[in-house]
Amino acid sequence: MGRMRPGARLRKVARALEQVDLRGNGTDALLVTQPADVRYLCGFTGSNAALMLPSGRRGLQATLFTDGRYTTQAAREVDGAAVVIAQKPVVLAAIEFALGEGVNCCGFDPASTTVAAWEGMRGAIAAKKRRSWFTPVSGLLEGLREVKDEVEQEQMRAAAALGCRLFDGVLEHMEAGTTEMEVALALEYMARLQGAERMAFETIVAGGERSAMPHARATNAKLPRRGFVTLDFGVVLDGYCSDMTRTVHMGAIRAEEREVYEAVLDAQEAGVAAVCGGVEVGAVDEAARSVLRARGFEEYFTHSTGHGVGMEIHEGPRIGKKQVGKLKAGMVITIEPGAYLPGKFGVRIEDTVLVTRTGCEVLTPSTKALIEL
Amino acid sequence: MGRMRPGARLRKVARALEQVDLRGNGTDALLVTQPADVRYLCGFTGSNAALMLPSGRRGLQATLFTDGRYTTQAAREVDGAAVVIAQKPVVLAAIEFALGEGVNCCGFDPASTTVAAWEGMRGAIAAKKRRSWFTPVSGLLEGLREVKDEVEQEQMRAAAALGCRLFDGVLEHMEAGTTEMEVALALEYMARLQGAERMAFETIVAGGERSAMPHARATNAKLPRRGFVTLDFGVVLDGYCSDMTRTVHMGAIRAEEREVYEAVLDAQEAGVAAVCGGVEVGAVDEAARSVLRARGFEEYFTHSTGHGVGMEIHEGPRIGKKQVGKLKAGMVITIEPGAYLPGKFGVRIEDTVLVTRTGCEVLTPSTKALIEL
Repeated sequence: MGRMRPGARLRKVARALEQVDLRGNGTDALLVTQPADVRYLCGFTGSNAALMLPSGRRGLQATLFTDGRYTTQAAREVDGAAVVIAQKPVVLAAIEFALGEGVNCCGFDPASTTVAAWEGMRGAIAAKKRRSWFTPVSGLLEGLREVKDEVEQEQMRAAAALGCRLFDGVLEHMEAGTTEMEVALALEYMARLQGAERMAFETIVAGGERSAMPHARATNAKLPRRGFVTLDFGVVLDGYCSDMTRTVHMGAIRAEEREVYEAVLDAQEAGVAAVCGGVEVGAVDEAARSVLRARGFEEYFTHSTGHGVGMEIHEGPRIGKKQVGKLKAGMVITIEPGAYLPGKFGVRIEDTVLVTRTGCEVLTPSTKALIEL
Repeated sequence: MGRMRPGARLRKVARALEQVDLRGNGTDALLVTQPADVRYLCGFTGSNAALMLPSGRRGLQATLFTDGRYTTQAAREVDGAAVVIAQKPVVLAAIEFALGEGVNCCGFDPASTTVAAWEGMRGAIAAKKRRSWFTPVSGLLEGLREVKDEVEQEQMRAAAALGCRLFDGVLEHMEAGTTEMEVALALEYMARLQGAERMAFETIVAGGERSAMPHARATNAKLPRRGFVTLDFGVVLDGYCSDMTRTVHMGAIRAEEREVYEAVLDAQEAGVAAVCGGVEVGAVDEAARSVLRARGFEEYFTHSTGHGVGMEIHEGPRIGKKQVGKLKAGMVITIEPGAYLPGKFGVRIEDTVLVTRTGCEVLTPSTKALIEL
């Protein structure tokens, strides 16, 4: 994995923690255990880790705790944090360290900590301090991770570019009679050979009537002689996810199918055109949705327009009609309207785009013109 | 998926809940949200579900809450429980239902519930009842799931048999110069074509010196002209995991390598021979470990002898030297001793076995005689 910029990320968290402090929770430090958060902040990819981060005012060194299996790996990967090979559970070692350094209040993420783990954490604190020592800090790293720094933007470009190459490559494997599963497996095999760690989610290959189901996983159904096939897939490359959807047509397209395809494509392009730093996420959703409304297909667009993507396939922000919040330059989001006519067929077209101050950069520039195979 | 026996499983949980009751926690019902637990109890495989189970004394019907995306799937899959399509978060719908039925105390699993989720659950209970309404119930379903019923035993046999077929098939793909990753991908491709939902864990293919690392994932390293290659892999078939390891040799084996191979094989067979309902798990570990001790290789056996396996790749019981507890007929466990000589080579051999009252049934009968490719 290329070097991230943990120094800058750690400073950003320290500043954000100071803000939590100002709201009166008295957070002195933050305990980070969610693997993607740990990797984001210091580059470590091992499966057993706890990162103790001081808040901005303290002179403490960010310190990663892991176990003896990861001595070599931690030395190679970790940047910006001290490493301690713990002889006890890593979370307990991290708490003991913080207590020794005089930390009085420690934030933790309630969305990634189980009740059982929390009980164990509380047990490490003397009874009289237990009530106040831990404080839940929700969404802090989630919020920071929504805006990708330059290193991450490069990683997202590389993952998306691999996705585009796979789409080109998989078209050769698609013919009437091939099963959806064979298409998915061919795509996944190429992905792994070209460096993907794994797929970001279960590959969707949905032919014929099945294209009307928005999240139909590949089955043993054969591709139709004549009809749509929706491909929705993502790879994880160097820790970052790609996400793209194209709907292609087997054989000659019918008039009603073309009408829906063009409506979805116009909606998708309107959504992309609406993306810009400072724009309300709801306005992006509406830009896509209103095109389908004008063509009479709004009722067949049954999901949101998009979502953030990064180290996890679904991150903030959500791009939906009830969502509030503004896009920021550096966010990476999907734009993926669709229209699903039950019992007939469906079309979805999805790009991943990087939000900029003046618009966006499309990271998945594979053609969206109708492909008839 | 074949029908499970949810009726019998639900009755087993209800009886176990009564025991919790007798210990004074006053548990009236159990809220189940961990996906494998939900699937185990009622067959449902959707991603959004909460199952509310009455304790033994109550006449309540077990009830599954899911959302509108799963209406058809729930009707097809769920057995032994009523289904409610909820218009609100499924956990809140389940709690509201239980309150309406007069439940006074509800168990939940602290190991699979986040602090954030728990706060949401508590928020659904009136303040004066909040302190006592929820009670953590640890390890109850985990314990029940350790002993596989007849339907599960059949599913474990099928998953393990697929593993054996894949081992036979992958040998054809192994020659000096092929990369570990190509071997892993060939195996995974065959697995999916033969019905595996996914791999149970990241496939291990470790050639030459890398075989001395117990958990080396497949890399782009080439298989050696002369040396060991360890293959450790598992599939998920019909919800159940297989797990097996074989170490094969490329080219002619050397004397020291043969000595280690035979020691590990003898240790593995001694471990399998020690398995029987009623036997202490530590005695099984010792049966394998003592063989390696007698041959002078004990220091190179750096992990436990095995673990339970089922819907999850690591379940109870642990088969280690510090573990206490007795094997029960119906448990499915791995026996996987190894010897790892740093900088030189390593050998691990692993079977999955079903514990019976008189011994065990080996579910992975692929040959363990030395294979020289």
